[in-house]
Amino acid sequence: MVKHAKMPRNDAGIHTALGILKQRFGTQCQTGHAVCEQHGHTTTWLENQPPDAVVFAQTSQEVSDIVKVCAEHRVPVIAYGTGTSLEGHVNAPAGGVCVDLSQMDKVLAVNAGDLDCRVQPGVTREDLNTHLRDKGLFFPIDPGANASLGGMAATNASGTNAVRYGTMKDNVLSLEAVMADGRIIRTGGRARKTSAGYDMTRLLVGSEGTLCIITEITLRLQGIPEAISSARCSFPTVESACQTVMSVIQYGLPVARIELLDEVMVRASNAYSNLGLPETPLLLLEFHGTEASVVEQAEIFGALSDDFGGTGYAATTTTEERNKLWKARHDAYWAMLQYRPGATGIATDACVPISRLADCVTQAQARAQELGLIAPIVGHAGDGNFHVTPLVDMADADEVARAAGFVAWLNDLALSMDGTCTGEHGIGQGKMPYLVQEMGEATDFMADIKAALDPKGILNPGKITS
Amino acid sequence: MVKHAKMPRNDAGIHTALGILKQRFGTQCQTGHAVCEQHGHTTTWLENQPPDAVVFAQTSQEVSDIVKVCAEHRVPVIAYGTGTSLEGHVNAPAGGVCVDLSQMDKVLAVNAGDLDCRVQPGVTREDLNTHLRDKGLFFPIDPGANASLGGMAATNASGTNAVRYGTMKDNVLSLEAVMADGRIIRTGGRARKTSAGYDMTRLLVGSEGTLCIITEITLRLQGIPEAISSARCSFPTVESACQTVMSVIQYGLPVARIELLDEVMVRASNAYSNLGLPETPLLLLEFHGTEASVVEQAEIFGALSDDFGGTGYAATTTTEERNKLWKARHDAYWAMLQYRPGATGIATDACVPISRLADCVTQAQARAQELGLIAPIVGHAGDGNFHVTPLVDMADADEVARAAGFVAWLNDLALSMDGTCTGEHGIGQGKMPYLVQEMGEATDFMADIKAALDPKGILNPGKITS
Repeated sequence: MVKHAKMPRNDAGIHTALGILKQRFGTQCQTGHAVCEQHGHTTTWLENQPPDAVVFAQTSQEVSDIVKVCAEHRVPVIAYGTGTSLEGHVNAPAGGVCVDLSQMDKVLAVNAGDLDCRVQPGVTREDLNTHLRDKGLFFPIDPGANASLGGMAATNASGTNAVRYGTMKDNVLSLEAVMADGRIIRTGGRARKTSAGYDMTRLLVGSEGTLCIITEITLRLQGIPEAISSARCSFPTVESACQTVMSVIQYGLPVARIELLDEVMVRASNAYSNLGLPETPLLLLEFHGTEASVVEQAEIFGALSDDFGGTGYAATTTTEERNKLWKARHDAYWAMLQYRPGATGIATDACVPISRLADCVTQAQARAQELGLIAPIVGHAGDGNFHVTPLVDMADADEVARAAGFVAWLNDLALSMDGTCTGEHGIGQGKMPYLVQEMGEATDFMADIKAALDPKGILNPGKITS
Repeated sequence: MVKHAKMPRNDAGIHTALGILKQRFGTQCQTGHAVCEQHGHTTTWLENQPPDAVVFAQTSQEVSDIVKVCAEHRVPVIAYGTGTSLEGHVNAPAGGVCVDLSQMDKVLAVNAGDLDCRVQPGVTREDLNTHLRDKGLFFPIDPGANASLGGMAATNASGTNAVRYGTMKDNVLSLEAVMADGRIIRTGGRARKTSAGYDMTRLLVGSEGTLCIITEITLRLQGIPEAISSARCSFPTVESACQTVMSVIQYGLPVARIELLDEVMVRASNAYSNLGLPETPLLLLEFHGTEASVVEQAEIFGALSDDFGGTGYAATTTTEERNKLWKARHDAYWAMLQYRPGATGIATDACVPISRLADCVTQAQARAQELGLIAPIVGHAGDGNFHVTPLVDMADADEVARAAGFVAWLNDLALSMDGTCTGEHGIGQGKMPYLVQEMGEATDFMADIKAALDPKGILNPGKITS
């Protein structure tokens, strides 16, 4: 495990706050070792840093009460959804209280006429989509994991559909949030757009629990398209696959999904999901629209891919086949882990302008090979965002060092291409060293905002800027 | 004119700063009465509050230098683009220095492959589109006025194309900005999405010059669609027109524009632009896509409008005809002013969930009539955003009072419908009384952010929160 420096603990304050919380919340407040460790667990190579207690909140008022107690005694408060974040977001480097929001799992309102809904933060994206299905609606943001919508808002998640439907920033209309002093605010209503003062919604979305705890989310929804079709196409190299993606974006083809898997990833997915695909770089696509437009999109894609040596272009004809293909894509993480049993996957998250994608992915593949790393690549190629995931034997110090060097090298490369080290995973603990490099003095102003909104520094300390 | 309380002036500081700026900038620094008054001029019913000097900046470094001088002497700094804002944004209630950015008018880079560009803040949207045309690209945000892109970013402008392409928030990839202490920061690169810390880009977009002065903007662009067609359709009532819009949005038809004009507005436009249209509520539409999809969209719209009594549905067949129709829409403001010569137009900016639009517009129309106000309505109906614009004889105190009452009533109505008092114009001076009502305690946290990023309060004082 990679260790982050622990932060100084306020043991006296934590002791006092825990006494108050146990009395106030009874069995909702748990301090057992296993539950605390599970709530510090993160799907990363970062050391587990458990909180001192987990409180299972059931209402916004309860969240407010917890924060008020912690504010009074200067105790860290860490919000927890499903624990699927990738950069140590839920670790507790200074101890403190984890607020588990999974029991706040109600869909509070669905306004079908306005294509919006209001949910509690513990609703997962799959639960929401199950709830919406018979209304002919869906929520498009799909980070892969069945994450909670509160967590997705807190980390500005995106994923496979972002090329068409945007990220959480584009799909959260407004929030209810508990601020660092326990006050509950609303950042807006249900209007599609607003210019009413500073954009608190988009400041809090992606603030990773460091500026507030999100207690309600108003989301944009989409109508389920009249027609959906999927397709796959194989390519001789990741370069030719990326060039095809670039031509698709430049053409303005409104693909709903365009995902890249490199040959290593295809091999892993074949093994895990029994796909039988040619083991060369692959694009997986999805088209949404009317019956006619879906056919037209698929034809245009076929013509574009021909120019770059695409082969085996095949549209899925049944829902079953489509689901199998996308399930395999969603299982990529598990397929990777099985590809090298016992290894830890270290997710990277570079995002570059689309014209640089082919070069960036090609260089990343070559560099991983040079370093002797097994590092499958999957990518939301239409956004220029891809994940190289070195599969690392954490007991091998030399390999860990090579992997760490690779991650730093890749972040540098993305920045040199006018990109970012994190397209969608966020900063958390893991990317703090890169934030200043990427954002320069803008980081100082982020720290000013943090100090202004959380003067005692109790909200998820040790993440993003501090 | 409606008077806003003047704020206390720091006469000594202003005197000192002006001396320094005159010496440093020579003829770039002007203090003549006419130029100052022109830079306080706003297209509103608010009193003109001119700055003490106007400095015509030519580089980011010059902007930084000006801000540093003003910071040292605690002198207000007000950024100025083209002066087309509608809520008194460029007024100088405490005097100070206006920074005119119109000479920073260069398109610095166009990355056709990535569909993005980087511009100085004084480039206007029409200039940018002229620059882009031979590259097959366009910038979609169209607030009507030929505003500067810096001003559009500062006020989070949107307009007729937002239903398809979003607002400035959705189309600014990153900024260079001069902060209140004169430091120059960059808020990101050219990646399509990023999760690198707090979203400084979207915090500064829409901050109306109160948190920074924007000195460069990196924008998303669009490919000019293969096919564009326009259409118009008349309706018996604004209610039936709005119901049609709602069904279009619920259907998921990707209209590029869907604009509402009520019968008063059609009458004014007929007179001003010689259109000869039936004087009943009207929808103007534009469809973007492939040749086939544009035809399909137009057909689907026709079927939907039939359900609500749409008549005279006609697609334009020539570019000339299309341009005439949209020029008339863009000239709506001038058509209104000519409709009641000598009157001042008082723009409102309510934005409500689409299911409430028909009710909101219908009530607004009835209320204006009750109050004896001549108040044409135009609206970006697909976003639920519409502008009722009472045409007021400012010499008639009773009429001014009725108009003011109408504006307050409409804002209340929009809020009661889960909407906002400002979909796109911003708060400025004019909407400050409504911000607290709309945002509640969230306004306190906006004020905290303002104090953190501009501790001396020199950036555009007297707007948004203070």
